[in-house]
Amino acid sequence: MRIVVLAGGIGGARFLRGLKAAAPDADITVIGNTGDDIHLFGLKVCPDLDTVMYTLGGGINEEQGWGRSDETFQVKAELAAYGVGPEWFGLGDRDFATHIVRTQMLSAGYPLSAVTEALCERWQPGVRLLPMSDDRVETHVAVELDGERKAIHFQEYWVRLRACVDALAVVPVGAEQAKPAPGVLEAIAAADVVLFPPSNPVVSVGTILAVPGIREAIAEAGVPVVGLSPIVGDAPVRGMADKVLAAVGVESGAAAVAEHYGSGLLDGWLVDTVDADSVARVEAAGIRSRAVPLMMTDTDATAAMAREALALAEEVRA
Amino acid sequence: MRIVVLAGGIGGARFLRGLKAAAPDADITVIGNTGDDIHLFGLKVCPDLDTVMYTLGGGINEEQGWGRSDETFQVKAELAAYGVGPEWFGLGDRDFATHIVRTQMLSAGYPLSAVTEALCERWQPGVRLLPMSDDRVETHVAVELDGERKAIHFQEYWVRLRACVDALAVVPVGAEQAKPAPGVLEAIAAADVVLFPPSNPVVSVGTILAVPGIREAIAEAGVPVVGLSPIVGDAPVRGMADKVLAAVGVESGAAAVAEHYGSGLLDGWLVDTVDADSVARVEAAGIRSRAVPLMMTDTDATAAMAREALALAEEVRA
Repeated sequence: MRIVVLAGGIGGARFLRGLKAAAPDADITVIGNTGDDIHLFGLKVCPDLDTVMYTLGGGINEEQGWGRSDETFQVKAELAAYGVGPEWFGLGDRDFATHIVRTQMLSAGYPLSAVTEALCERWQPGVRLLPMSDDRVETHVAVELDGERKAIHFQEYWVRLRACVDALAVVPVGAEQAKPAPGVLEAIAAADVVLFPPSNPVVSVGTILAVPGIREAIAEAGVPVVGLSPIVGDAPVRGMADKVLAAVGVESGAAAVAEHYGSGLLDGWLVDTVDADSVARVEAAGIRSRAVPLMMTDTDATAAMAREALALAEEVRA
Repeated sequence: MRIVVLAGGIGGARFLRGLKAAAPDADITVIGNTGDDIHLFGLKVCPDLDTVMYTLGGGINEEQGWGRSDETFQVKAELAAYGVGPEWFGLGDRDFATHIVRTQMLSAGYPLSAVTEALCERWQPGVRLLPMSDDRVETHVAVELDGERKAIHFQEYWVRLRACVDALAVVPVGAEQAKPAPGVLEAIAAADVVLFPPSNPVVSVGTILAVPGIREAIAEAGVPVVGLSPIVGDAPVRGMADKVLAAVGVESGAAAVAEHYGSGLLDGWLVDTVDADSVARVEAAGIRSRAVPLMMTDTDATAAMAREALALAEEVRA
C-alpha cells in the first residue's frame, strides 16, 4: 500500500511513527512543510523536516519532541558570547551539524529535496521524506506590536512570542510562485491513500496545500483522503493551533477544521471520543467521520489511531 | 611606542603574549597571515587569526596551542556521522561558533578585516589584529603523491599529511592580486619598530610579505626591523618549518633564514644561544645579530625574548 502523508513537525512526526508501526509494509511518502524554515546564523534550518527525520531515525529529543537527544549547547553559548542572536531559537550542537551539512549542500547547488535525501541516508527514517517544494516559502504572521501592524517570521511568532499576541493573518510568502518538489505530484498520483496527521491545519498542512498543484493533485487522485483532528475538546492537543486558526477565521474545534479543509479535499475525518458530538456536523459537511481516541500518548496509541485512519479510508473507498 | 608584528599562528601568538608583557604600554598592530585560511563545511576558517585572537584573549587551548579551551566535539562527530569530511581538521564546538559568525558576516558583505575587528570586540586581545589582506590568498604546496605531482592546500599538507612528504614548491595562490587590508600599510608607515616573531618564514611571514606593497612598506618605513629565529639548533622550535624551507631552497638554520629575509628587509636578527656561532654569519650578511635564549617556555621567558628584540631594535636605531 502506498500512503502519502502531509506532515508538519512534532504532531506529524509522532503520527508517522505510529503509522509505520500500524502498517510496517506500507510504502510511505511524507510531504513535509518547509514554510517554517528559517535562516539562522547564515544556516538553513528546516524544523519540520528535521523533526520528522530525527523522530523516525531515532535521534529525537523525546521529551521536547524536537531537536536532538543528548544535546549540548556550546555553539549557541559561544554565539551569544559574540553577541550574535537570535537567542530565542534553541539550536544544539548536534543539530547545528545538520544545518551545516544542509547549508553547504545548498550552497553547492543541490536542491533541498536532494539535500533532504542525503541527510536521510544517515537517518534511514523508513519513509521517503520530500520537502513540499525546493523553492523558498516562508510563513509570515501579521501581528500588532506596540500599536503597529507588522509581519514577522512564523518562528518569531511561535517561538519568541509563544503566540501570545493575536495572529491577524498568516501568509505563506512565496507559496504562489513555488513548485512542488520533484516526486511530490508523482507520489500523490500513485497513492492508495492520503493522510493528514494531526498537524496544524493552517501553518503545517495548510502551507503544503498552498503550493500550487498539491491541493489539486490530492483532490484529483481519486483515492481516500483521511485526516485526524489536531483539536481535541476545542483546544489543540499541543501547540497553539487555535491562535492561527482564528487568523483564518476558523473556530477552534474538530468539526470546524474538517469544514475548513472541505469535502472537496477530505473524504474522512477522525475526531477524538470527547468530540463524538462533532461527528454529525462533519458528516453533514459531506465528510465521513468517526470518533476514536486521538491522544498520541505512546506508539501503541498512535498506531491504533493510524489503523483507524486506514480503516476509515477503506470504508470511504468501498 | 608603536610596534607592528607580522604573525603566523602558534609561534606568533605566543610571542605576542610575551611582547605585551614586555611592553604593556605599547600600541601593537598585528598583521596576521591568512594564507592558511580554509573553507571547511562551507565555513571560512582563519587558523592564524584565531590562534592570535584566542591566545591573547584568554580562550586558547594552552596545551595544543590552537583551538579553544574546554572544547567539545559534538558537531564534528555529527558531521562524520553524515559522512561529511574532512575529518583530519579538528574543529571543536566552541571554535565552530567563531567560523559561523565569520561566515555569516562575510556573506553579509563585510570584509575580513571588519569581521576580525568584530570578533576581537569579544576577545579584547589588547592588540589591533589585521588580516594581511581582505582578498583571498591560499597557500598551496606542490607535492608528489603516488607518483603524481599535485598542488594541495597548505592545511592538507600540514595537518593531514603532517608534512611527511617533501614540499616541492610553496605558492601563495592569489597573493599577487591581493591588496593589503585597510590599515596595514598605514600601521607600517607609522610604526616605531617592526618585529618578525619566530613564525614560519615561508608559510607565515613569507606569505604576508608576498602581498604586494607590504614588503616594500616595511623596507621603506625607515624604522628598525628585527626578527627572531624560528630555527634553533638547525631544527624548527615547533612545527615543520624545515620542510617548507627546503621547498624555497633555504637550509634549516638560524643564519640561513636571516639571509633569506635579507638585509634589504631585516636590520636585526636574534638567534638562540645554541646558535651563537651563527651571529658572525648573520652580521656578515649586513644584519645585526645577537644570541639569546629563544625558547618560549613560559610568558616570562617569552617577554625576555621580546625585550631583547626591542633592545636590538634600539641598538640598530642608534
